[in-house]
Amino acid sequence: MSDEQRKVGVAVIGVGGAVATTAIAGVELLKVGACGTEGLPLADVTSLVPYTSLVFGGWDLDGDDLAKAAHLHGVLEPRVVEAAGAGLAAVSPWPAVADPEYCRNARGANVIPVSSVRGRVDHVRADLERFRIEHDLDRVVVVNLASTERWPDLTLPSLQTPEAFAAAVDADDPVISPSMVYAYAAILSDCPYVNFTPSASADIPALLELALQRDVPVSGKDGKTGQTMMKTVLAPAFRSRALHVDGWYSTNILGNRDGQILDDADSLSSKLQTKGTVLDSCLGYPVEDHVVRIDYYRPRGDEKEAWDNIDLTGFLGQRMQIKVDFLCRDSILAAPLVLELVRLSDEAARRGEGGAQEQLGFFFKAPITRDGSAPEHALYRQEQVLREWLAR
Amino acid sequence: MSDEQRKVGVAVIGVGGAVATTAIAGVELLKVGACGTEGLPLADVTSLVPYTSLVFGGWDLDGDDLAKAAHLHGVLEPRVVEAAGAGLAAVSPWPAVADPEYCRNARGANVIPVSSVRGRVDHVRADLERFRIEHDLDRVVVVNLASTERWPDLTLPSLQTPEAFAAAVDADDPVISPSMVYAYAAILSDCPYVNFTPSASADIPALLELALQRDVPVSGKDGKTGQTMMKTVLAPAFRSRALHVDGWYSTNILGNRDGQILDDADSLSSKLQTKGTVLDSCLGYPVEDHVVRIDYYRPRGDEKEAWDNIDLTGFLGQRMQIKVDFLCRDSILAAPLVLELVRLSDEAARRGEGGAQEQLGFFFKAPITRDGSAPEHALYRQEQVLREWLAR
Amino acid sequence: MSDEQRKVGVAVIGVGGAVATTAIAGVELLKVGACGTEGLPLADVTSLVPYTSLVFGGWDLDGDDLAKAAHLHGVLEPRVVEAAGAGLAAVSPWPAVADPEYCRNARGANVIPVSSVRGRVDHVRADLERFRIEHDLDRVVVVNLASTERWPDLTLPSLQTPEAFAAAVDADDPVISPSMVYAYAAILSDCPYVNFTPSASADIPALLELALQRDVPVSGKDGKTGQTMMKTVLAPAFRSRALHVDGWYSTNILGNRDGQILDDADSLSSKLQTKGTVLDSCLGYPVEDHVVRIDYYRPRGDEKEAWDNIDLTGFLGQRMQIKVDFLCRDSILAAPLVLELVRLSDEAARRGEGGAQEQLGFFFKAPITRDGSAPEHALYRQEQVLREWLAR
Amino acid sequence: MSDEQRKVGVAVIGVGGAVATTAIAGVELLKVGACGTEGLPLADVTSLVPYTSLVFGGWDLDGDDLAKAAHLHGVLEPRVVEAAGAGLAAVSPWPAVADPEYCRNARGANVIPVSSVRGRVDHVRADLERFRIEHDLDRVVVVNLASTERWPDLTLPSLQTPEAFAAAVDADDPVISPSMVYAYAAILSDCPYVNFTPSASADIPALLELALQRDVPVSGKDGKTGQTMMKTVLAPAFRSRALHVDGWYSTNILGNRDGQILDDADSLSSKLQTKGTVLDSCLGYPVEDHVVRIDYYRPRGDEKEAWDNIDLTGFLGQRMQIKVDFLCRDSILAAPLVLELVRLSDEAARRGEGGAQEQLGFFFKAPITRDGSAPEHALYRQEQVLREWLAR
Ligand SMILES: NC(=O)c1ccc[n+]([C@@H]2O[C@H](COP(=O)([O-])OP(=O)(O)OC[C@H]3O[C@@H](n4cnc5c(N)ncnc54)[C@H](O)[C@@H]3O)[C@@H](O)[C@H]2O)c1
Ligand SMILES: NC(=O)c1ccc[n+]([C@@H]2O[C@H](COP(=O)([O-])OP(=O)(O)OC[C@H]3O[C@@H](n4cnc5c(N)ncnc54)[C@H](O)[C@@H]3O)[C@@H](O)[C@H]2O)c1
Ligand SMILES: NC(=O)c1ccc[n+]([C@@H]2O[C@H](COP(=O)([O-])OP(=O)(O)OC[C@H]3O[C@@H](n4cnc5c(N)ncnc54)[C@H](O)[C@@H]3O)[C@@H](O)[C@H]2O)c1
Ligand SMILES: NC(=O)c1ccc[n+]([C@@H]2O[C@H](COP(=O)([O-])OP(=O)(O)OC[C@H]3O[C@@H](n4cnc5c(N)ncnc54)[C@H](O)[C@@H]3O)[C@@H](O)[C@H]2O)c1
Ligand code: NA
Ligand code: NA
Repeated sequence: MSDEQRKVGVAVIGVGGAVATTAIAGVELLKVGACGTEGLPLADVTSLVPYTSLVFGGWDLDGDDLAKAAHLHGVLEPRVVEAAGAGLAAVSPWPAVADPEYCRNARGANVIPVSSVRGRVDHVRADLERFRIEHDLDRVVVVNLASTERWPDLTLPSLQTPEAFAAAVDADDPVISPSMVYAYAAILSDCPYVNFTPSASADIPALLELALQRDVPVSGKDGKTGQTMMKTVLAPAFRSRALHVDGWYSTNILGNRDGQILDDADSLSSKLQTKGTVLDSCLGYPVEDHVVRIDYYRPRGDEKEAWDNIDLTGFLGQRMQIKVDFLCRDSILAAPLVLELVRLSDEAARRGEGGAQEQLGFFFKAPITRDGSAPEHALYRQEQVLREWLAR
Repeated sequence: MSDEQRKVGVAVIGVGGAVATTAIAGVELLKVGACGTEGLPLADVTSLVPYTSLVFGGWDLDGDDLAKAAHLHGVLEPRVVEAAGAGLAAVSPWPAVADPEYCRNARGANVIPVSSVRGRVDHVRADLERFRIEHDLDRVVVVNLASTERWPDLTLPSLQTPEAFAAAVDADDPVISPSMVYAYAAILSDCPYVNFTPSASADIPALLELALQRDVPVSGKDGKTGQTMMKTVLAPAFRSRALHVDGWYSTNILGNRDGQILDDADSLSSKLQTKGTVLDSCLGYPVEDHVVRIDYYRPRGDEKEAWDNIDLTGFLGQRMQIKVDFLCRDSILAAPLVLELVRLSDEAARRGEGGAQEQLGFFFKAPITRDGSAPEHALYRQEQVLREWLAR
Repeated sequence: MSDEQRKVGVAVIGVGGAVATTAIAGVELLKVGACGTEGLPLADVTSLVPYTSLVFGGWDLDGDDLAKAAHLHGVLEPRVVEAAGAGLAAVSPWPAVADPEYCRNARGANVIPVSSVRGRVDHVRADLERFRIEHDLDRVVVVNLASTERWPDLTLPSLQTPEAFAAAVDADDPVISPSMVYAYAAILSDCPYVNFTPSASADIPALLELALQRDVPVSGKDGKTGQTMMKTVLAPAFRSRALHVDGWYSTNILGNRDGQILDDADSLSSKLQTKGTVLDSCLGYPVEDHVVRIDYYRPRGDEKEAWDNIDLTGFLGQRMQIKVDFLCRDSILAAPLVLELVRLSDEAARRGEGGAQEQLGFFFKAPITRDGSAPEHALYRQEQVLREWLAR
Repeated sequence: MSDEQRKVGVAVIGVGGAVATTAIAGVELLKVGACGTEGLPLADVTSLVPYTSLVFGGWDLDGDDLAKAAHLHGVLEPRVVEAAGAGLAAVSPWPAVADPEYCRNARGANVIPVSSVRGRVDHVRADLERFRIEHDLDRVVVVNLASTERWPDLTLPSLQTPEAFAAAVDADDPVISPSMVYAYAAILSDCPYVNFTPSASADIPALLELALQRDVPVSGKDGKTGQTMMKTVLAPAFRSRALHVDGWYSTNILGNRDGQILDDADSLSSKLQTKGTVLDSCLGYPVEDHVVRIDYYRPRGDEKEAWDNIDLTGFLGQRMQIKVDFLCRDSILAAPLVLELVRLSDEAARRGEGGAQEQLGFFFKAPITRDGSAPEHALYRQEQVLREWLAR
């Protein structure tokens, strides 16, 4: 079957969110030729499934259809949302698996009325099967774009092996977070899984192992969009020029729902965790004065601002400073990466390559590795790895 | 003979300048262990001649010894200059080849009393020979760190072949600039030549050809230190993420002597020329609104400030902005690159590799290429080329 | 007659420009209650003629109706222009007095077919009279919002007295610029005159004297909106704290038609002139390193960016720096000031106060004074003078 | 007695701190003519006691002499400290009144061995008397420059009247903080008291009342130096131009001991409290999205950086942004204000004006008022009040 004829489903966790609706609106606009391919890093790679062959569905705590949701997020101007309108309005979120223990600030009524963990897993699997049949899909990729959950204790035995995990599911073990339920269901249903959030999900030993056993591609975590992306560009350059980084102060101000969620200390700590090690890895030594702040600040909405100050020491111990102010668009940077991850996950599945997808590190703040070793963070090296994989 | 025993001379054109005196002070401080290797990108490459085996001399319009010159430039605090004092004070600039037609703002009395161009070439060659013998040097590398000259007409026939050039020298052709005199003399004396300035020098067809014939390494031009270095780091990243650059506005404020020279429209145009094409090359398309300003502003002295604004378009045509403010130290960034270029030029000569040294593009704003084709500008790719060459 | 019933006409030179159409759209939106009074400094002063009692007309080189013009400028989103649509579409610019000698980059076909200077004056006066009668206006205020003209030689005898000026008009003396024609006609027709541009206009001795003789209020020049406004706020504070300003570097990037005009060196020099003395006046000493740049940079359109760097010396000679980045909206800042100037000029005329209106210095970069003495520039002192005048 | 002959003592709480040692070094340098009057706002006011007539002493937890302390703080270069050396070395801090309950991060061994609160008060008074006699002083002014204490419960009855306070002192009531002990002792000894810190000190009802009864000038609190000073300059200007402030995000990075103290949540909350209301007061309406961050960041030492982002709405609801980056010197900005406050407090005492000194609001983030009403915050209005008082 030719690429053009294949249809790939995208089941999004958090389908009513800012990033998800922006990605879906984008595909709708691409279908009608109302936008170009700016921001899509692999627009030139024709061996991947075309953007316009993607079919969207997914879960959300909020049951509003996506046209309504997109208007609310205000990422795109009203007339752009309207141009993408029919496609967006056609998607109504499925009831979600949720747990206030894991994400305090995310609230909504559209939840499945199932309380056992195993029952939730089965419910998600049934959603995926129904979606596949309804749209006659060749494959379904699951993407996590839900609100950031708090950080679990990853050393617990239940998370170490597939068997222990299955037992924990059956025992309604509270360590199993909603995003683990989704990931587990996806892997059992042979759906490639992409974790774009900082939550601990498929990247626990138990699920990585299961994905490998079942040959299901999984990737993550935490999309690398604004400030962290810039860090992985600048830090390698400072290293190239032997400029020593004495300190790096980063602050972010954002006023969208994601910012509101991160206003909760528990969710924030997950986010800061994925932002943390990037710098030391790119430089090859620890930066003691690396400070990262994320502040909820409403006037800016989705138009995040990331301000960085970098203190450098150069030749003869002389000091220098660099300030970077990135007036970015949070969801605009994220959405195209999500689309590429879907296409690439589909490609990995076609190639029969399961388990942790290291070649996708280009897209993530905290790339998962097969053997748990430290990942590559420098953007240009990540891109080379990806391009080589594509060329294989 | 072991590396440690070899002695490499560095004959600097503009030896009394800010960059030159900083580089020489650095080597003096390294000798006494008074500074580390911050800013020296190849400090780890032990196959190159050690920094402490370099011996300095050179020409300048200003005859003051280098300790005096260094105090005047104010790049380093008085006590640092004093720590490097004996070594600096020992160097007194040789009389220079100069021509106000080529550099209006550079004035000084320490000039050779020779008016024929051939006579000047011979004078420079005699300086090199005397320097080599006096210090018992294994090799002499010539580095151009003189003030930026105005741009000549590079299409003139005299500059196209070694023969035409030699004839022009004999005919006192006014197209022959001081920096061409130095470069010609260096090549005839089999001294590797590094052009760290934006002036047209060894990078004219006649001299590139001659260098190839005589197997003399030449490299240039215009050291890539602050703003342009950052451009060649950021632009490839924007390309990686498919963020379209709509415009890039760069302004520089600096108050050192180099800034004063660039206050002259003729010298400035040479500088802007080397800054120009970098961006389009890294991006793969022309940026119509690429503006570069250099303004002389005294309060800052050598502590240059480079402010950039970048306008980007991302997914769905949405606009973003990035501002970069680099509070840098002009000479502090430049001096270590000069030292590396000397060591690498020595290495190329040892390997018997003459002509344009493409693997040194990492250090230059406008790297010269063997066949005149467009050079690579992306910093990380340049570094890979260099590292591969080193590993050969 | 009550204030509410009075009708004040505003005859705008450059009525099709960005600032003019924004001001007029604003009044239309205020009429229908579609906007608030943000940006209008005197919204609380009820003794002035209401904004909604203003009636607009005027001259422009471009004959397009104002709805078309406003769409073209792109200052306001299409739906805002549409909301103000009927009122804008109703205004079609009158043929203009123009002279390419005075403003090279301003071109357009809508010009009066009169070549003698006296004939032009009479034509403008006839326009004013027709406008007054057509709309049954109680007064007409003339506001100059045309493109910046080049700087004339202000020492010429023809510009020193009303008599000499009248003779020059009759003699078609080329020193008489279009903006002088407009100003002369306004004063002769007893219309208060506001010069919001940097062009030399009513602020020449001959016309200031004439205005005083005829008791016509005149004010100017060059609206104080973005960077210069900030300068007159910050500089007095540095003085209050005895922080010495060693240098002040200002750059502006803008991409609207005004920016395009200022891309011409002649017009630019008029602009830089009005920007110049402000700083020294606020500080009480000359700042030698005061650099002001204005660069045409299209990606930004009307969304000007003004970046400032300030070098300060404080206690014990210690150095500090401040950077200010103003992402402003050129016409959005200017338009409400224009509306206040019209209301205040009307008030001055009602009070019978003619000649240079010093109390309006609050609005201008280069306030004209009655006796040619140096004006007050500090914003807060200007505001106090204005508020006292209003309270009189 | 002439001004030149009077001698005014300055008893500093925290005399070994960065601000104190900088102020004292300054006076020493002024004595020998080694520095100018930059940063001293009232250098021109000759009716005040000359800077060089000030004699310094004071308390600190750290017993090191001030030359040592100044070297440690690194505010001034070694050679400047040396130039001021004799005068600094001559001052050894007196044992301090301290309480870890009030300031966790401030530790030191130089404390008085007295545990009853009344005993501490008497000890401080004895220090003041000894200081006065030893140096034959005409007056002693007490200045609080100690580390910021945590915020006490100001509603407690013991803090409401002089009588209740005296009883609390006798009862060793734990609500009495060290800075209240110092303030109480100063007032009882008729020494004018200046609170340059954010701690609650003389600005409690009991002590304000006592100061009034005894005719002792008191002022405070929290010196207005960098970011807050700028706020009280910019906000009034936005109000003048009717630009609505939608949000104001402020972050501070600093690496001196003060920054380390503020790294403790309790001390920080006192600081944020004084920074808080300034903005709303200058604007006349509450800014909901006003965020203030202070982060300890070592690479910068005393060279604090304050970065602000301001979101504005102007005419027709259009949005603008301003960023201000202040690379300031914390102690360099503070020290001269301390010197002026001492001179002005002496002047108030000479005039016989006791109680809260409202005319000194110019120097403080949270000026105390006589009747507890909201203070004026706009810098220029504060300066006018001060200048009028001086001219009286
Ligand atoms: N640049 C970026 O925008 C970026 C970058 C990296 C990571 N992320 C992450 O992507 C995620 C989405 O960001 P966003 O801006 O779209 O956030 P958002 O708040 O707009 O959307 C999240 C959506 O998830 C839904 N949700 C929450 N819990 C759920 C659950 N258990 N099941 C199903 N739906 C659930 C919410 O109702 C909401 O609609 C966040 O975790 C964010 O941290 C975003
Ligand atoms: N970051 C950087 O500093 C940097 C980066 C790239 C290029 N450069 C270039 O390096 C050069 C040196 O920079 P600098 O800051 O040291 O400048 P500088 O002005 O301090 O030094 C230049 C020296 O050259 C001397 N000189 C001028 N003409 C000469 C001649 N004909 N012969 C011999 N000496 C001559 C001058 O007297 C002066 O001492 C400049 O061309 C500059 O553009 C500097
Ligand atoms: N913040 C601000 O926008 C600001 C501040 C201060 C001063 N100004 C000045 O205000 C003026 C208007 O600015 P703008 O942004 O609206 O510019 P614009 O270019 O949009 O408008 C100027 C208009 O004047 C017309 N014009 C030119 N010459 C004319 C003539 N001789 N007679 C009649 N019309 C003529 C042009 O056709 C154009 O429509 C400029 O001079 C500008 O420098 C603007
Ligand atoms: N720009 C500014 O620097 C600025 C502005 C406003 C307010 N302040 C305030 O001024 C104060 C001093 O600032 P700094 O930078 O000099 O701080 P610092 O930490 O350098 O000095 C404080 C000194 O107070 C001493 N100390 C602490 N508790 C004491 C006690 N109970 N008795 C006696 N001494 C004690 C410490 O040992 C230290 O030497 C701080 O409260 C700070 O918040 C400073
Ligand atoms: Na987001
Ligand atoms: Na304009």
